[in-house]
Amino acid sequence: MHDFVFHNPTKIIFGPGREMEIGAELTAAGIGNVLLVYGRESVRKSGLLDRVIATLNQSGIGFVEFGGVVSNPVLSHTREGIALARQSGVEAVLAVGGGSVIDEAKAIAVGATAECDVWEFFLGREVTAALPVFSILTLAATGSEMNGNAVITNEETRQKYNIGTIHAYPRVSILNPELTYTVSPAYSAYGAVDAIAHLIEAYFTKEPGTRLQDRLVEGLITTIIENAEIIRDRPADPQARASMMWAATLALNGLTPAGVGPYTFPNHMIEHSLSALYNIAHGAGLAIVIPAWMQWYQPRNPAQFERFAAKIFDRQTGEAGISALKEWFRGLGCPVSLAEGQIPNGDIDRIAANAYGLAQRWEIDQLYPAKTIAEILHLSAQ
Amino acid sequence: MHDFVFHNPTKIIFGPGREMEIGAELTAAGIGNVLLVYGRESVRKSGLLDRVIATLNQSGIGFVEFGGVVSNPVLSHTREGIALARQSGVEAVLAVGGGSVIDEAKAIAVGATAECDVWEFFLGREVTAALPVFSILTLAATGSEMNGNAVITNEETRQKYNIGTIHAYPRVSILNPELTYTVSPAYSAYGAVDAIAHLIEAYFTKEPGTRLQDRLVEGLITTIIENAEIIRDRPADPQARASMMWAATLALNGLTPAGVGPYTFPNHMIEHSLSALYNIAHGAGLAIVIPAWMQWYQPRNPAQFERFAAKIFDRQTGEAGISALKEWFRGLGCPVSLAEGQIPNGDIDRIAANAYGLAQRWEIDQLYPAKTIAEILHLSAQ
Repeated sequence: MHDFVFHNPTKIIFGPGREMEIGAELTAAGIGNVLLVYGRESVRKSGLLDRVIATLNQSGIGFVEFGGVVSNPVLSHTREGIALARQSGVEAVLAVGGGSVIDEAKAIAVGATAECDVWEFFLGREVTAALPVFSILTLAATGSEMNGNAVITNEETRQKYNIGTIHAYPRVSILNPELTYTVSPAYSAYGAVDAIAHLIEAYFTKEPGTRLQDRLVEGLITTIIENAEIIRDRPADPQARASMMWAATLALNGLTPAGVGPYTFPNHMIEHSLSALYNIAHGAGLAIVIPAWMQWYQPRNPAQFERFAAKIFDRQTGEAGISALKEWFRGLGCPVSLAEGQIPNGDIDRIAANAYGLAQRWEIDQLYPAKTIAEILHLSAQ
Repeated sequence: MHDFVFHNPTKIIFGPGREMEIGAELTAAGIGNVLLVYGRESVRKSGLLDRVIATLNQSGIGFVEFGGVVSNPVLSHTREGIALARQSGVEAVLAVGGGSVIDEAKAIAVGATAECDVWEFFLGREVTAALPVFSILTLAATGSEMNGNAVITNEETRQKYNIGTIHAYPRVSILNPELTYTVSPAYSAYGAVDAIAHLIEAYFTKEPGTRLQDRLVEGLITTIIENAEIIRDRPADPQARASMMWAATLALNGLTPAGVGPYTFPNHMIEHSLSALYNIAHGAGLAIVIPAWMQWYQPRNPAQFERFAAKIFDRQTGEAGISALKEWFRGLGCPVSLAEGQIPNGDIDRIAANAYGLAQRWEIDQLYPAKTIAEILHLSAQ
């Protein structure tokens, strides 16, 4: 165990129909009006947006709508949201959607109170304030509903960068698993891959010996695997959707890495370049990167890969565990090679150069020079 | 999975020497003076109190000392603390000690802002406010450092009752595992038993089928067992003390029962009577009660006991798992029968009558009439 600070003040309200409590929660927090951030048409078609607006009206909460957030949310749209938030003088930001919507809502919340352009924070400037963020989650995947992270893509520079700050933790996040019943098989699978990805980064790259955290990770991965299979076969299974939703939240809320000491996010680093350059779904990109990275990294931490293989897949060797995970991704319908993700193998050097920018930003460029990133990507070309 | 609300705003600062940050944390929270609550001489002898006072002085935080909290903290002393807090006009309560000290500090914090006598809250009145609570933990056991619970014994009525409120969550708790190196073997063992007890109450008494939560519990119990054995053999093992401290915190911070639906605390219910009547250490009382309660309860949830036996002790039957846990308690030096706890078997009806009062308070008197409690206690007489 290493020193750590754990501080996660987000209030989670979990259960069917509980989005109707958002008006009361905003009122209790003293919020009188919000920027209502959402994505495309799905929340409108499903009736969710209407229900949310009804509870806002009922509680006398004013709101300004700001739709159009895209998957892999972009800086230009974030800046529009910041301008609208300032102009309309909203007191908080309410995200209704998946991780992309919540991420952009956080970035708007940070930018709305700042004197500088919001991208400066993504380049390293310290965040010192934000409007309060609230969220109603519609996708089990990113964990953004219970952390202070946001990832935004700068379309001009092709940088997919992140911020992490205590000020961006949602005050309240409402998790209604029923809202995920209609998520497509592909995106349900990508969500599972994303949650697993969040868990394995620290699990494999930390120093060995923090068994408490290993066990929490293994319990969560086992739960995600079990329920992703049920969801593939029965998309509206209430227990599976609920378990997946809570497991995905716990996968990136700071619990599992607390105390493990330094660790890195290499799979996310490389994947961010795939989605920045090709706009591939984040979970799909991770399914391509993870088996390749594991194959490359396994000799650097063989005991942990052996443990992973035994605990998660009941296999005898680290290599067999990696194969089992890759096959499991494939069985969920995820791409597991660059070709399957429609990404030309010939682009590897370009991708590696892009990812190296993030390696520098995260100060892991010594571990991951562009040549090494290219080497890993070549393993996903096989 | 059932509906739930999870909201745990406590900031945990974990690591050797970090108690020196308390002054800065209080300052950041805008606190200018505190009631400094502690127990007997040990925090003075160890030098901890002097170090805490030094950091308070350095940060310009005023303080009023209030020592003398006893194990199984009592109402009369709590009332003295409330009077002192009011009279001195402190803005917050800082607990330096184990679970008893933190519990009493919370009760003082609640009572200091109330117009009624504090005991009314323990009898069911809703808590609506409290002074901010901060803590520096010296014992891995109760989890009080990261929850809103407090247990106080009314010496006049011999009631050991609890409150649970969002207002009593510590704002900041500092966990320095080095402070637990000198905890006696007996109290180190009792702490481990207490943490296990917190985990098994919901694990066995909830509805079956919430595997995510089962896995978190099993990971924590395995960690507690593993590290309690190391601590027994090497009391100053840094990794074991650190793992135990964090595991005990996670064992009662709301994480593991979130989503499991209704459950009960029968072992705590019965044990509270043992410590209310005989002032036995809480963990020692639990080591007596748990194997008896398990033996009685096992036919009511056989599948979960079989799972427990397999996952924790690699045993084939529920009964074998219960025996293994009882033997493990014994191996740590805990009493596992009333006789070993110096409690006369002839007192069983008196204990059962006392525990039945708490069963009524917790509204589980239908499940646990006094006759049933006596039946369970007779199993601990064997």
